[in-house]
Amino acid sequence: MKLATLKTTGRDGQLIVVTRDLSRYIAVPQIAATLQAALDDWSDCEPRLRAVYDQLNAGHVAGAQPFDAAACHSPLPRAYQWADGSAYLNHVELVRRARNSQVPASFFTDPLMYQGGSDSFIGPRDPIIADSEDWGIDMEAEVTVVTDDVPMGTSPEDAIARIRLLMLVNDVSLRGLIPGELAKGFGFFQSKPASAFSPVAVTPDELGNAWAGGKVHLPMRVDLNGEPFGRPDAGQDMTFHFGQLIAHAAHTRDLEAGSIIGSGTISNKQGGLNGSSIRNGGVGYCCIAEVRMYETIETGKPSTPFMHFGDRVRIHMEDAQGQDIFGTIDQVVTQRTGA
Amino acid sequence: MKLATLKTTGRDGQLIVVTRDLSRYIAVPQIAATLQAALDDWSDCEPRLRAVYDQLNAGHVAGAQPFDAAACHSPLPRAYQWADGSAYLNHVELVRRARNSQVPASFFTDPLMYQGGSDSFIGPRDPIIADSEDWGIDMEAEVTVVTDDVPMGTSPEDAIARIRLLMLVNDVSLRGLIPGELAKGFGFFQSKPASAFSPVAVTPDELGNAWAGGKVHLPMRVDLNGEPFGRPDAGQDMTFHFGQLIAHAAHTRDLEAGSIIGSGTISNKQGGLNGSSIRNGGVGYCCIAEVRMYETIETGKPSTPFMHFGDRVRIHMEDAQGQDIFGTIDQVVTQRTGA
Repeated sequence: MKLATLKTTGRDGQLIVVTRDLSRYIAVPQIAATLQAALDDWSDCEPRLRAVYDQLNAGHVAGAQPFDAAACHSPLPRAYQWADGSAYLNHVELVRRARNSQVPASFFTDPLMYQGGSDSFIGPRDPIIADSEDWGIDMEAEVTVVTDDVPMGTSPEDAIARIRLLMLVNDVSLRGLIPGELAKGFGFFQSKPASAFSPVAVTPDELGNAWAGGKVHLPMRVDLNGEPFGRPDAGQDMTFHFGQLIAHAAHTRDLEAGSIIGSGTISNKQGGLNGSSIRNGGVGYCCIAEVRMYETIETGKPSTPFMHFGDRVRIHMEDAQGQDIFGTIDQVVTQRTGA
Repeated sequence: MKLATLKTTGRDGQLIVVTRDLSRYIAVPQIAATLQAALDDWSDCEPRLRAVYDQLNAGHVAGAQPFDAAACHSPLPRAYQWADGSAYLNHVELVRRARNSQVPASFFTDPLMYQGGSDSFIGPRDPIIADSEDWGIDMEAEVTVVTDDVPMGTSPEDAIARIRLLMLVNDVSLRGLIPGELAKGFGFFQSKPASAFSPVAVTPDELGNAWAGGKVHLPMRVDLNGEPFGRPDAGQDMTFHFGQLIAHAAHTRDLEAGSIIGSGTISNKQGGLNGSSIRNGGVGYCCIAEVRMYETIETGKPSTPFMHFGDRVRIHMEDAQGQDIFGTIDQVVTQRTGA
């Protein structure tokens, strides 16, 4: 099943059901006005939404409209929980190698996770607004899951069964603000501004065999200014699966339905190289910081700049037939008016 | 105006208007079903809620019921944003002095703030659930504000005008988990479980002259197992006022209506002592960690234990006439069933 949220004058938009091929949609106010409302009562709403989805795919729904990802908000325009892991330790290894330090052994058993802000997500085609290029504007392409209620103390295995939807995210990161903020000891805040999610959220069954072991076994496709930038496989080198990430988040608290849990920047090892650019025949990267770290390791200094005003990032994922699964995140970096 | 949320079968409870003396209440479904709904449309709802409040205080509302804080959820049972500052630098100084280090000068100009989780707050009379006393269970008594929409880049002065409500919070902290978690570099997650807010949220005008300069000039009253534990003044030694904290949170993103911003643990300097216990004639503390740090500075090691299962913490604030303003947070530490 594929769900999305149309932008409206309301803060939470309007829930719609979208065809598998992302060609048409229908609103479902008789089932739930918003995606959060559907998640709040998933056991009741899910079969009813699925019935509409099946009819819609079969071409049997009167009033279906052409689907336009540009009319979409993030599937949850605001959420109650956004917890982002850092499950691809290659990303962490690159950071550490670039400064000649090691990854602690505990990082392979105890997931890294930060508490994100979830009150004001931006839409998948909205600009990335920043005051200054000096903020070091970077994308991070990730897979995320949306959970049902997850009681405190849930095991990793049981947690997988609480996953209701998957989305992609551009977890925008302000690299220029991160060192100062992390040095204060309280984690990210200003350095992680509003994230944008894929236009469409899908149930795990939509991924077929690509959804296995709590991981998505497909390449993440990142393009920067029209050029391929990254194609790493989201199922490779993911040290912790989503069940483990959810269980980590629910270790000392309940998670409420509609909680979003992120994978962290997707990053593949390639031989002993910790990755390599697409231009050099590798799978490339899901954030600029990694190519800069690779450049630092190889040449002593980074040569790829962070994003400038006007730069454009596109993030999507295709199935084995080349069909876009989640719709495409497509954003241009833009200076804030008045900044 | 005083507002609260009754627990119901729904996730967001039911918005009620409460008399100034916390004696009676009336539900207001004709205005807004939930507090978030009222905040989403505050300019429309606020005058209508205030009209009910005035009538209720005058004894002119038919059907008003006796108010019982035990029937309340946190005013926002779940929120989209919970950002907690650490504005009382005496707290930070104590931590640092206990380990013979200094507070960086930048801490006096750049607020400390962590991103909290907001999906599953607990009620003001709900137990504090933990798996183990080894988690180092501690209270943190703080003042919080609830904002209207705050655009990115709002100034501290303008931010004060975006404050709609004030509440108290017990920002439960798991001291045993903090060092390991902060060492990972991504800030708090498991070490900050679900918070409980005061039964009642109040508009700033309810505080009269005690609300000045973006600070609440009244003692925070914390009792541990029936004994006075802290009476520090929330208006003293607050290095950053709420306008500054909100502006910090909104530096790189918009804040959505209903965002909760916390002051951090209230902590007063007393002479050169960085505080002193009530038993020793001081104003005491708003968390156990501080008295332990004070003990460490004075005697080389802490002697006050963190909370045990069965321990009870009460947090409230009184006006000049001794009237409870926000209702009382009253929680007992309880082991999780199955832990």
